[in-house]
Amino acid sequence: MSIFSVDFKVRDYECDLQGVVNNSVYQNYLEHTRHEYLLSRGLDFPTLTEQGIYLVVVRAELDYRKALRPQDRFRVTLHPKLYGKLRVIFYQDIILDNSELILQAQITATAINPQGKPIAVPEIMQKLVE
Amino acid sequence: MSIFSVDFKVRDYECDLQGVVNNSVYQNYLEHTRHEYLLSRGLDFPTLTEQGIYLVVVRAELDYRKALRPQDRFRVTLHPKLYGKLRVIFYQDIILDNSELILQAQITATAINPQGKPIAVPEIMQKLVE
Amino acid sequence: MSIFSVDFKVRDYECDLQGVVNNSVYQNYLEHTRHEYLLSRGLDFPTLTEQGIYLVVVRAELDYRKALRPQDRFRVTLHPKLYGKLRVIFYQDIILDNSELILQAQITATAINPQGKPIAVPEIMQKLVE
Amino acid sequence: MSIFSVDFKVRDYECDLQGVVNNSVYQNYLEHTRHEYLLSRGLDFPTLTEQGIYLVVVRAELDYRKALRPQDRFRVTLHPKLYGKLRVIFYQDIILDNSELILQAQITATAINPQGKPIAVPEIMQKLVE
Repeated sequence: MSIFSVDFKVRDYECDLQGVVNNSVYQNYLEHTRHEYLLSRGLDFPTLTEQGIYLVVVRAELDYRKALRPQDRFRVTLHPKLYGKLRVIFYQDIILDNSELILQAQITATAINPQGKPIAVPEIMQKLVE
Repeated sequence: MSIFSVDFKVRDYECDLQGVVNNSVYQNYLEHTRHEYLLSRGLDFPTLTEQGIYLVVVRAELDYRKALRPQDRFRVTLHPKLYGKLRVIFYQDIILDNSELILQAQITATAINPQGKPIAVPEIMQKLVE
Repeated sequence: MSIFSVDFKVRDYECDLQGVVNNSVYQNYLEHTRHEYLLSRGLDFPTLTEQGIYLVVVRAELDYRKALRPQDRFRVTLHPKLYGKLRVIFYQDIILDNSELILQAQITATAINPQGKPIAVPEIMQKLVE
Repeated sequence: MSIFSVDFKVRDYECDLQGVVNNSVYQNYLEHTRHEYLLSRGLDFPTLTEQGIYLVVVRAELDYRKALRPQDRFRVTLHPKLYGKLRVIFYQDIILDNSELILQAQITATAINPQGKPIAVPEIMQKLVE
């Protein structure tokens, strides 16, 4: 069902004193995968930001099933779905060795201007799901 | 309603190329506040980890209302609630200047052993809410 | 001999699988202290950046004497010294409990424009050391 | 001259409000490359840590030549050299697109026990340079 994915390997500095990847780092993996997906659709996050189009997360739901360990190789998948005209939900999984589910996430994003007001960006939303 | 809080100030290195605090960093703030709360209840996260009691997050729900900016001073609050015998939910808000809501979070945690199996730690759960 | 300092407490997420603060995090502490020092001299790092004045580190020398551990309280000190007309060296120490030396650093910084060319900013350099 | 290297791509979350990779993140890249090098020599950093052999950095010299930008692809190289019986110096460069020098580093490491005392680990030192 996912339409895009990025492969990663855990780096030791991402692990905390429990010896596993720290909770916050999963959001880094998810974000990097979303931004790579944007690139694959011809959308460049830093350039959009310079143009005053701020893509932002408004809600994140993260279900942690199992921890990633040092040197684990894993895949982050992505499936986007429009939610109304202003929002997109990214369904993202983290999968270890192509089989074991590590984390399931549902990330809701929207676009705002530099003043923080929601803006309609129909071309961008269309590119994300076409 | 919150029974505990920690005050913070945004550090510039926590901000990303949008000029605001990166999404993942809020989880750092929330975690630090939870660990300070544990300490206030006589529970030391690194020591528990050494003893083989791993407190872990199994679910995080984060509603991002507004972004924190460089040098913002903010408070992270916490209200714990037992959920069954094995889980605790931490309701956590991030508040700017004691008034503006930045983020609302609901973090569900449990205890596992080093092999990843859930363990019952009734004394710890009791200390968290008494 | 230091003319400025900031007090910190180690946060658990800053520690890695050795159970101590990860090497890279000390640079976060040092940077935050320098930016707080800038503020104390009327210089705002994010605002300077928006104005096209990029203060950047060109060299860092870090001597790690001893590791910081979870919950350690420590102080980061700063002593600035002009080096020619275009550079400033920040001598920075990290001190545990006001007595034990954890890290000594010598950070050389300069100003560049958004295209990466060195620029002379004599008023800023003057404010840093007056 | 380098005997090992790892290829990377900048991730947006590694960039700060100047729009370039934050200074501290380069140490992450350098560390990950060293740990991958250890693995290539049959040495596993997390396992060594569990065995009470803590490989630690005692000195870092970093010359920042040019900043990495979002999506840059770069290589981190490594050349190790024993320094006495107890220390190893890793000479590491960061190279953009196989040509442009971004950063030069000289990282001095040693081994300590969990109590922080230097320990001689001749077999490990030998594996690092043979």
